[in-house]
Amino acid sequence: MEKLQNDLILRAARGEKVERTPVWLMRQAGRILPEYREVRASLSGFKELVETPKFAAEVTIQPVDILDVDAAIIFSDILVIPEAMGCTYEMIKGKGPIFPNPIVEEADVDKVKVSDPDTDLKYVLDAIVETKTQLNGRVPLIGFAGAPWTIFSYMIEGSGSKTFSKAKKWLYTKPEASHRLLQKITDSTITYLKAQIKAGANMVQLFDSWGGILSTEQYRIFALPYIDQICKAINEAPITVFAKGAYGVREDLGSLDCNTIGMDWNMDIAETRKLVGSGKTLQGNLDPCVLYADYKTIEEKTKEMLKQFEGHSHIANLGHGVYPDMTPDAVRCFIETVKAY
Amino acid sequence: MEKLQNDLILRAARGEKVERTPVWLMRQAGRILPEYREVRASLSGFKELVETPKFAAEVTIQPVDILDVDAAIIFSDILVIPEAMGCTYEMIKGKGPIFPNPIVEEADVDKVKVSDPDTDLKYVLDAIVETKTQLNGRVPLIGFAGAPWTIFSYMIEGSGSKTFSKAKKWLYTKPEASHRLLQKITDSTITYLKAQIKAGANMVQLFDSWGGILSTEQYRIFALPYIDQICKAINEAPITVFAKGAYGVREDLGSLDCNTIGMDWNMDIAETRKLVGSGKTLQGNLDPCVLYADYKTIEEKTKEMLKQFEGHSHIANLGHGVYPDMTPDAVRCFIETVKAY
Repeated sequence: MEKLQNDLILRAARGEKVERTPVWLMRQAGRILPEYREVRASLSGFKELVETPKFAAEVTIQPVDILDVDAAIIFSDILVIPEAMGCTYEMIKGKGPIFPNPIVEEADVDKVKVSDPDTDLKYVLDAIVETKTQLNGRVPLIGFAGAPWTIFSYMIEGSGSKTFSKAKKWLYTKPEASHRLLQKITDSTITYLKAQIKAGANMVQLFDSWGGILSTEQYRIFALPYIDQICKAINEAPITVFAKGAYGVREDLGSLDCNTIGMDWNMDIAETRKLVGSGKTLQGNLDPCVLYADYKTIEEKTKEMLKQFEGHSHIANLGHGVYPDMTPDAVRCFIETVKAY
Repeated sequence: MEKLQNDLILRAARGEKVERTPVWLMRQAGRILPEYREVRASLSGFKELVETPKFAAEVTIQPVDILDVDAAIIFSDILVIPEAMGCTYEMIKGKGPIFPNPIVEEADVDKVKVSDPDTDLKYVLDAIVETKTQLNGRVPLIGFAGAPWTIFSYMIEGSGSKTFSKAKKWLYTKPEASHRLLQKITDSTITYLKAQIKAGANMVQLFDSWGGILSTEQYRIFALPYIDQICKAINEAPITVFAKGAYGVREDLGSLDCNTIGMDWNMDIAETRKLVGSGKTLQGNLDPCVLYADYKTIEEKTKEMLKQFEGHSHIANLGHGVYPDMTPDAVRCFIETVKAY
């Protein structure tokens, strides 16, 4: 059994008593750190970084060394799953991800496969092994994947979108094919998360980044059942579900077989606790833009947030990934305020 | 006093009894209609259409003729206000609006002026006059403007954005200058809406398209007070406030001195009615993507929505603007279902 020097986040996820609230940030490994930008600049592009275990491990550990967070999260991308399924992506500077061959017709669903993590995603697993060796038990490592609806959105849309109307159109016009693709993504995600845990991830998180664009009714048909399958299948480590903007289904999220529910900055803390129930740990949810303010304001707003969570069953985080133009010092101010509270 | 052949929407907005629920669609004048695309193709660009009263009037009336909606909405753009204030925009195909000289420093706030509708926005007023003449009392005409926070976002950000983090950064780092700019936008908007009503608009709508990216606390500080000023100033005609994604402030919206609250497709109808109270008309809120489905599904989902509103104090609409690739027949199916209900 692995001996961790700091297992606060795992205990908080399991609802156990903790000495203080653990803290980490979504996108903590990334452009906010000059050390990250240096590694990134030495490579051909974002994908080389994601696909080279040595470099992925290096940038994964940077925020542990530099920011003193209570967990590392493996540097990767949710789009490695569509790629592993046969739907490759390119990361275009200033434009985000583009899929040269998105899913257009129903027949395209048959062309993508259920991925095998040991062959198709070996570079992520190797990065996890390398990271664990270097972390040497200092803090837990978080693995992750996109939730099926979000991955589906990208595969159909072929890029980011304000409305994801192509993806939503599929749900209304091709429900059977949509379910078939969602199931393939789900099957790929389950083995992928299990492999991440086997390789050393101590907990995992599902990101439903586009949860907020589905109506409540459609979320219950096309998103929740697949998240539910994943939660039920993952018993080896705590699992967190972060469905951004999914205000209407928080009560449903509370019934999932998961440990933690992530909250965006617009979700009222007391209301969410009431809807989700007392059985889950909540994660979040400071407005990321607070980190643009002066230290006094950051401290004040962070304390206000902590007070509302009342200390129990809480993992402190922002309500969204940290933005690239925020300073490491502002992030440190947030982290230190949580630790001192 | 103007005699309207169909004033259903005005009576519904005032909470009066109506024979049936009135219906219109956000973005009904636009790319869904081949007749619109024909006019648009004959011109140099989007801005020529917005700025030429004859053409703006023509496309405003198209959906009344072709789709038989219960109201026309003047063809224009919320960005005419920043332009009138001295912060011009360009509409780039496939990219959306770009501001060559956005507001960057506090001193830039002093460089923009409070606009005068009679000189700076005469083309909109002329389009309204022309539209009213051609409509000849068939249905009411809706005027509109962006809500101050949304206009502020574009002026600071200089373009669309997923996070509007530059604009949000201003709120945290330059609160005083932010309020100053928001007040200038508000003052410009009040005289603009009054001028639209004087020119012939029978009701007006405020679009807070980016309401959902502010935290509840910030919405109450930087968005609501300015919407409140506008609502209090506009007494000449009914006013609708549509704050997309502003789930956390629906109770506050219920206290505004406005007639109608617009709802996006993610807002639960019963919950919103409870939060807003019985004193307001609600507008919305079918998931626009339902219009991608077959007619049977469109009919079914539209009836489900109508049933939840229970007929009283309701203006039927989608929960977002209609998307350009939807068919006029699908839109007609939605409209006819509302009318036959």
